[in-house]
Amino acid sequence: MDTKFILPEKEMPSRWYNIQADLPSPLPPVLHPGTKQPVGPQDLAPLFPMALIQQEVSTERYIDIPEEVRDILKLWRPTPLYRAHRLEKALGTPAKIYYKYEGVSPAGSHKPNTAVAQAYYNMKEGVKRITTETGAGQWGSALAMGCNFFGIELKVYMVKVSYFQKPYRRSLIETWGAKVVPSPSTDTQCGRAALAEDPDANGSLGLAISEAVEDCVGREDTKYSLGSVLNHVLLHQTIIGEEALKQMEMAGDYPDVVIGCVGGGSNFGGIALPFARDKLTRGKKTRLVAVEPEACPSITRGVDVYDYGDTAGMAPIVKMFTLGHTFAPPAIHAGGLRYHGMAPLISELQRLGLLEARAYHQNTVFQAAVQFARSEGIVPAPEPAHAIRAVIDEALACRESGESKVILLALSGHGHFDMSSYDKYFAGELEDYAYPEEKVREALTHVPQV
Amino acid sequence: MDTKFILPEKEMPSRWYNIQADLPSPLPPVLHPGTKQPVGPQDLAPLFPMALIQQEVSTERYIDIPEEVRDILKLWRPTPLYRAHRLEKALGTPAKIYYKYEGVSPAGSHKPNTAVAQAYYNMKEGVKRITTETGAGQWGSALAMGCNFFGIELKVYMVKVSYFQKPYRRSLIETWGAKVVPSPSTDTQCGRAALAEDPDANGSLGLAISEAVEDCVGREDTKYSLGSVLNHVLLHQTIIGEEALKQMEMAGDYPDVVIGCVGGGSNFGGIALPFARDKLTRGKKTRLVAVEPEACPSITRGVDVYDYGDTAGMAPIVKMFTLGHTFAPPAIHAGGLRYHGMAPLISELQRLGLLEARAYHQNTVFQAAVQFARSEGIVPAPEPAHAIRAVIDEALACRESGESKVILLALSGHGHFDMSSYDKYFAGELEDYAYPEEKVREALTHVPQV
Repeated sequence: MDTKFILPEKEMPSRWYNIQADLPSPLPPVLHPGTKQPVGPQDLAPLFPMALIQQEVSTERYIDIPEEVRDILKLWRPTPLYRAHRLEKALGTPAKIYYKYEGVSPAGSHKPNTAVAQAYYNMKEGVKRITTETGAGQWGSALAMGCNFFGIELKVYMVKVSYFQKPYRRSLIETWGAKVVPSPSTDTQCGRAALAEDPDANGSLGLAISEAVEDCVGREDTKYSLGSVLNHVLLHQTIIGEEALKQMEMAGDYPDVVIGCVGGGSNFGGIALPFARDKLTRGKKTRLVAVEPEACPSITRGVDVYDYGDTAGMAPIVKMFTLGHTFAPPAIHAGGLRYHGMAPLISELQRLGLLEARAYHQNTVFQAAVQFARSEGIVPAPEPAHAIRAVIDEALACRESGESKVILLALSGHGHFDMSSYDKYFAGELEDYAYPEEKVREALTHVPQV
Repeated sequence: MDTKFILPEKEMPSRWYNIQADLPSPLPPVLHPGTKQPVGPQDLAPLFPMALIQQEVSTERYIDIPEEVRDILKLWRPTPLYRAHRLEKALGTPAKIYYKYEGVSPAGSHKPNTAVAQAYYNMKEGVKRITTETGAGQWGSALAMGCNFFGIELKVYMVKVSYFQKPYRRSLIETWGAKVVPSPSTDTQCGRAALAEDPDANGSLGLAISEAVEDCVGREDTKYSLGSVLNHVLLHQTIIGEEALKQMEMAGDYPDVVIGCVGGGSNFGGIALPFARDKLTRGKKTRLVAVEPEACPSITRGVDVYDYGDTAGMAPIVKMFTLGHTFAPPAIHAGGLRYHGMAPLISELQRLGLLEARAYHQNTVFQAAVQFARSEGIVPAPEPAHAIRAVIDEALACRESGESKVILLALSGHGHFDMSSYDKYFAGELEDYAYPEEKVREALTHVPQV
C-alpha cells in the first residue's frame, strides 16, 4: 500500500499550462489606473520584463519552462503526492484522500515556483534589481531565493508589524542575500509621508506595494515583482497540477474533488487549472473547491466588478471578485489569505460555474490542522489548513453517504514558521472574526467607476 | 545531469545495521552509576523496554525494521540524496559533493528515525507513558510525533531558557499532542529542589534529564527515552547511511570522504556506520570525518575514560571520549552539539583509527551555511552547518590539488527553527568561544573512579 507517489526528475513537466487558450471567451481587459482605458504592453513595461507581460496575455495553450528554470526547480521538484491513509483511518471514511505537498521547497511553500521563473525572465532581459513587498514574508523569502540564483539584487518592503513580530522569514530573506526594510520606510516618498503622519505606523500590504512600485518606476535598472493574482504567476504554478495529474495516474485514481485554499489565487490556480482544463476540454466532472477565510471571503461574499489590485489605487484595474480595495481584513493568522480580491483567472472560473467556494472560521481551521498533523505528521501552514478543513468535511460526508470519493488536497506549505499561531489556538486565543459585512459594504463604495 | 537521487519506497531498507557485529572486540561494559559494576538488562528495565535493551547489547549484524515502523518512516523516507552541482560550481572545485537530506521529515531533522522506533517498541511492551528531556526542542518534537503515532502519552522536560526563548519547537511538541513543561519544574523532587535554591534558574540539559528520569522510575506505566548517544539510537539512524549507499550506487559513485557533525553521535553514526562496515569488512578506504564545535570538542580534545552520561551523575557510566560530565559548554547556537561526551560506538571508531575529527568556530560555520543556502537553496540548521564547513574546506583543498574526490555530507536538518541564529550571525553578534580549556580540565577531575 503506497504512501507516496514520486515522479522521476525526468518526468517533471516541461511546459506550463495556460488556461487562457481554453476559455470560452477572453478575460475582460485590464484597465490603466489613471486613464481607465485598456492597458497595452508598454503601460506595464516599467514594472515587468516583456516576457512576463507577454505571458500575461498569451493564448498559447502550453509555454515551455526554460531549462535554467527547470534546473533550479529540480532542487525540490517534482514534489511528492501522498495518500493520506492515516487521516482516512482516523476519520473512518471510505473516501480516498491524496495531498500534493509543496512544503519540501527550501522556502517551505509553493511560492518559489513562480519566484524562480520571474527572476529568470528578469535576468534574461538584463534587469539588475527587483523590488517587491511582503506581508508575513512567504513571498519575500521565495523571491529572495529566486533572485539569488540569478544574481539579481532584491529589495523587499516588509510590512512593519510583521518585520518585528515575525522576524524569522525576514532572516530567511537576508540569508538568501536580499535586502529587507520595514514598511513604511524612509526610502520612498510615500513611505516618508506615512511616517510623517504617524511615526509609529504599523504599515500595510497596500502601502508596501506602493513603496515597492515607487522604488521600481524611478530606476532604469529595476523591475517590480508580484507573487500572486496575475495570470503569469498562476501560469508558473500550474506545474503543481500538471505533476499531480501524472501522480494520480500512478496511483490509479482521478480526483472527484480538488480542494485548495485561495488568497490571491496562486496556490489554488496551481493545482486547479490543469483540472479545469480537463473539465473544459474533456468533459471531466471534477469539483474544484476554493476555500477562503470567513474574515476575507472574496469569492463567497465579494462582488464581480472592476477594482484596483492594490489598496492605494496605483495598480491596474481588473475585473474580479472583490471585497473592495480599501477593505482591510481582520488580523487572521493565515496572512497569505488576507487579500481583498481574487485572481482574474480564478474569478473567470467562478463566472463559468466551474468553481465551488466555501469559507471557514479560524478555530475550526486549526482544529483540522492539528488533526492532520496528528494523523499525517506534517504540520500545515495556516493557509492550507483552510483547505484541510474542507477535505475533512468532504470525507466525513462520505462516511455518512458511504461514497468512496477521491479527494485531492493542495498542501501548499509547512507551518514551521507559523507555530505562534498554533500556540494561540491551543491557548484559546484565536478569534473567529465574523464576516465584516459593514466594512465590506463601505469598501465597495470605493471601487472605481469604469 | 541529475540533481536528486530518489529511492523508490519499496527500496527503503528493511533492516538496521548493527556495527557491534563487526567490531574487532566488544565495547567496554556499561557500569551502574551506583555500584560501578557492569549493568545487566534488569538494571535498565525501569528505564527502557526490553526490546531496546536487547538492541543495546545485540551483536546481530542486521535487525529487521518492524513493518509498523516502516509504514510511518515512509511518510518522509527514503530521503533524497542530492548532487550539489551549484555549490561545486561556486567553489570552482573538481570535487563531487553529494548530500543526504533529512530535513524533509515532518520535524525537519533526522531525529524521528529513532523516535518512531522507540515509541513503537514501548507500545509493543504496553508502555502507556514516556518521559524525556529536550534542549532546544529537536528531540522533544520528534518524540512527540513518534508517541502520537502509537498512542503513547509523552511528557517533555524542556530546558527553561529554551522553553521561553525558543517557543516554536515547544509549540510543535504540543501540536503533536505531548505535554511540555519548563525545567526545572515543580513536578519532580529534583526540580523543586532546584527552584527552592533559585526560583529563576534557567535550567540545564543535565537537570532536565534528572527530572525525566525521576518522573519515569517512580511510575509503573512509564519509561524513559533518549534521543542520542545510546547504541540502539545509532542503530535506528543507520537507515540514513544504508539509503545513502544505495543512492550513491544510483549516482555511480562511492564516497572518498563522509562528513557529518557530531554532538551525541546519532546523526554522524546514522550516515557513517554503514560506511564503517565497508571499511571493516570490505577494505574500503573511505575517510569518516566527524565535525565538532570548537566550544565542545569531545573527540578532538576530550579524554577516553569512563564517565557519566548525564550531568547529574544518575545515568549509567560509559567508556567514551568526554570533556567531563560536569562541563557546561558555552551557549553556542548549535544546541544539538552541546553534549559533554560521545556515543560509545563513535568513541570506538575513534579508538580503532577509523575516524578523523575536527572542530570549528561558530562564525566560519555560519559563513559556510550561508554559502550553502545561496548555492543549493536549502537553509541548513546550525548543527549540520558544521559539517558543511568541513565539506567546503575539503572541496577547496581539491581545487588546490586538482583531485576529484567524492564527498558525502550528512545534512541532518533545515534551519527554519533556527533563523534567530542567522540573525545574530548577520548582525556580527555570534561569539567564537575559545576552547574552554580550564573548565574542561576542572570538569575532568570529576569523572568517576572505576
